[in-house]
Amino acid sequence: MSGPTVKIVNIVESLLINNDLAAGRNQRRLAEAGVLTINVMAAPGAGKTSLIVRTLEALRDQARVGVIEGDIAGSVDTERVLAAGARDAVQINTGGNCHLEANMVDRALTELDLSQLDLLLLENVGNLVCPTHWALGEHLKLCLVGAAEGDDKPVKYPEMFAVSDVIVLNKIDLIDHVDFNREFFLESVRALNPGVPVFEVSCRTGAGIAEWAAWLLAQRAALGGAAATTEVA
Amino acid sequence: MSGPTVKIVNIVESLLINNDLAAGRNQRRLAEAGVLTINVMAAPGAGKTSLIVRTLEALRDQARVGVIEGDIAGSVDTERVLAAGARDAVQINTGGNCHLEANMVDRALTELDLSQLDLLLLENVGNLVCPTHWALGEHLKLCLVGAAEGDDKPVKYPEMFAVSDVIVLNKIDLIDHVDFNREFFLESVRALNPGVPVFEVSCRTGAGIAEWAAWLLAQRAALGGAAATTEVA
Repeated sequence: MSGPTVKIVNIVESLLINNDLAAGRNQRRLAEAGVLTINVMAAPGAGKTSLIVRTLEALRDQARVGVIEGDIAGSVDTERVLAAGARDAVQINTGGNCHLEANMVDRALTELDLSQLDLLLLENVGNLVCPTHWALGEHLKLCLVGAAEGDDKPVKYPEMFAVSDVIVLNKIDLIDHVDFNREFFLESVRALNPGVPVFEVSCRTGAGIAEWAAWLLAQRAALGGAAATTEVA
Repeated sequence: MSGPTVKIVNIVESLLINNDLAAGRNQRRLAEAGVLTINVMAAPGAGKTSLIVRTLEALRDQARVGVIEGDIAGSVDTERVLAAGARDAVQINTGGNCHLEANMVDRALTELDLSQLDLLLLENVGNLVCPTHWALGEHLKLCLVGAAEGDDKPVKYPEMFAVSDVIVLNKIDLIDHVDFNREFFLESVRALNPGVPVFEVSCRTGAGIAEWAAWLLAQRAALGGAAATTEVA
């Protein structure tokens, strides 16, 4: 019998690799269920919950929409989206974490009956930086920005605008009260992400919401498969 | 001669402990130089650079103000604050990092002649979460929030409001165009941070800036020591 041998443990610590693995599992699960999933990202106060509420109201008779709310603390948003017609909603409290991660969404998905949903909106924590690095298993990344935040957000936070599949410019009702150069904003977006769709809306007045909701519904239809033909009960 | 002995290296990896050590060094350096230093924290688009520009204009003949600009990319803010009268300014590009850290400020301080400054404004990366955990060596933490972000920011991002030494509510010129409940906002702030001073300003119109700048100057005077008696050249 020989003596003890050297035991080598290679520890590869990659939080992002583990996150991407979990995101892949979420994505397969959501694809199988035919649930179009949107990662809603924005700075604090851009109007993420308001956009979700408006989207729920616009799609009330056309799609079954679930919501996962990511917040550092509290559950007021979940109460708000349920009141606005969400079929189901789960609150994630990140406990101080500045972004959602795939394993949090994995845990929240176990609380939802995906067979009863056509669309799932994931409201990320308010942050224009960190969420870009953490895939959740979503089909589409949405970057929401409020006109009051200024026309320079694409220049200042380029990665968020570069990775997003769709941009929504909110609070256009304030555009005449702030120094917002729409052409400069759109040019900056195009430079980072040519061809990305940009919707201009006001969650306060409802302007532009119908166009945005119609686009979202078309994306859901494009998912195809049996799930896409589900009729809303 | 005996054989090789077991060598034990205790690796205590604590990024935050290392940061706090560097922050302590910065703080001693700034205290010795009598430079009152403010960590300006806010969500993207709240108006950090605009507040700094307004403060520079208000204090032009009363204090020598330096600025360290923290941005993920670009140097437009540094050009803007120099044009507005900053005695000196340094741009930190965080390379994607979502907050300033003390070693970045340490490096930037080597570019400034502290003997020529009374005040130093550190503009953090736009983020209401991550900067709260990273001390920079500042005397005061400032939380800036725009009225267009909504009255619920203290409830949604409690730690930022709890750790701050002063709150500035910006964009009060928009308050009649958004659904902002001032009493609810102030009550939420007081619940997290009783007695914290709150200034209401509009960087667009200049409203409230004189009161804010006077308070800042009083904080500088309270630092005391020889430095406090420096006259502006």
